[in-house]
Amino acid sequence: MLDYDHLSALAAVVRTGSFEKAAQQLGVTPSAVSQRLKLLEERIGAALVVRGQPNVATPAGARLCRHAEDVGLLERALRADLGELGLAAQPTTIRIAVNADSLATWFVEAMAATEGVLYDLVLDDQDHSADWLRRGEVAAAVTASTGSVQGCGSRPLGALRYVATASPEFMRRWFADGVDEAALRAAPCLRFNQKDELQARWIRNLIDRTVATPTHWLPASQAFVDGALAGLGWGMNPEPLVRHHLASGHLVLLAISPLDVSLNWQWSRAVEAALADVTRAVTATARRFLVQ
Amino acid sequence: MLDYDHLSALAAVVRTGSFEKAAQQLGVTPSAVSQRLKLLEERIGAALVVRGQPNVATPAGARLCRHAEDVGLLERALRADLGELGLAAQPTTIRIAVNADSLATWFVEAMAATEGVLYDLVLDDQDHSADWLRRGEVAAAVTASTGSVQGCGSRPLGALRYVATASPEFMRRWFADGVDEAALRAAPCLRFNQKDELQARWIRNLIDRTVATPTHWLPASQAFVDGALAGLGWGMNPEPLVRHHLASGHLVLLAISPLDVSLNWQWSRAVEAALADVTRAVTATARRFLVQ
Repeated sequence: MLDYDHLSALAAVVRTGSFEKAAQQLGVTPSAVSQRLKLLEERIGAALVVRGQPNVATPAGARLCRHAEDVGLLERALRADLGELGLAAQPTTIRIAVNADSLATWFVEAMAATEGVLYDLVLDDQDHSADWLRRGEVAAAVTASTGSVQGCGSRPLGALRYVATASPEFMRRWFADGVDEAALRAAPCLRFNQKDELQARWIRNLIDRTVATPTHWLPASQAFVDGALAGLGWGMNPEPLVRHHLASGHLVLLAISPLDVSLNWQWSRAVEAALADVTRAVTATARRFLVQ
Repeated sequence: MLDYDHLSALAAVVRTGSFEKAAQQLGVTPSAVSQRLKLLEERIGAALVVRGQPNVATPAGARLCRHAEDVGLLERALRADLGELGLAAQPTTIRIAVNADSLATWFVEAMAATEGVLYDLVLDDQDHSADWLRRGEVAAAVTASTGSVQGCGSRPLGALRYVATASPEFMRRWFADGVDEAALRAAPCLRFNQKDELQARWIRNLIDRTVATPTHWLPASQAFVDGALAGLGWGMNPEPLVRHHLASGHLVLLAISPLDVSLNWQWSRAVEAALADVTRAVTATARRFLVQ
């Protein structure tokens, strides 16, 4: 079997980006970290880390980090079964891919409902988060993908409801004559990033055609809401994030029709038992926030 | 001189990632976009876009996009001077690098205070946003760097104040006997990403040593606040973002001492005149939110 002290050194270097910080985390010297990593690279027969600032995993290194995390999760399940028999309870770090709007609305609450877990979140669009799972770089993901990933389980979470919103002043200025093609072509629109198709999909649902809009690129969920409130543009905001702004009249709907994005929880079956608590917290919390 | 219709095609492909969407934006066919890009690549003598999903700029392509944007900004200044003389007022897109916490606290308000500008924001840590300017990939940046970038102007904006916060319950559980080294070593800490050194710096200021903390990695400003509120961990939050939570008692300070991060506005002198409105809005808004 592999030397798991060596693997821990690799994982710490990749997580912190630096030999010094990895050493601190492990309570050893940087040269011990460097030595362990070198031995592991010799054993594997490949470079595992591209040295630099920060130090970054090679594909082989990333695969080994994922393995170290999986073993950590299996030890967590083992500890639960053995009732702490001689195994010190160290919190396990779980890497999860989640879309920004889930993190902004309900995912933190799910995280807070678990004990003894440390989270390492990567953000990606819900249409792309399954790729992280497919590449073996995360243990689980919140995805919009319905396709199954090899070796992974999947459970529907419900739909995150998006509503097209803008400030009342923005509506008066740009949509005084209604939300039609000419107005949409002129009114500034917010877009999270290249992967964000929600505004375009909503327009197609509404007027059955594609419209090129003047666009602000605003890659943060709360800034998206703030941008609508400040009259910068209109955008598709998660309903839980703007509910009170709609109630108070600081935001208004462009049109009644919402856009529901169905989300799934997908996880690696190799660590299914160890993820049981997290899966339970995620599905229970999602039930309260998402449209079933 | 270069053919600016060709340059616009390149910029649209890189911005949208797709030939189809670039075509929509420009009101031409995808094959026209493809043709223009090919002609430009022949003229430059290098590939400008790596074809794929999405289409991504090569280094030469990125440099040309930046040039197209600079020319757009110069035309904006020209239009202002000529008083619309025969130049249709098209909104110019300006690419700016900004740190997530500025975007979460004050930057949207600065954006909303300008007219006729579309923003394309890239997020990076305040210690790294100047690199975007140095590489010529943005026209301006909010940075913590004091070093000047060649060909760029710089103006101090004031400091964003960070406070170490946690929920009252979290404090009782982890810091009942005070915020000392042993407690910090055990209590889960929030960290934005590898580049985020604020928690480590604050600990060093407080107890004059480095402590390895159990860490949640949480790469979103509002989720950072939500994580503290939910008792997931303690973290350095921007004071404007948690002021009302501190007032209401939903968050408490770990210790009085804040951490001030000085920010600068840095911009490319080549487009200084065209950025004048934006610079004015940014500096005026920063004055109201940052510690002077």
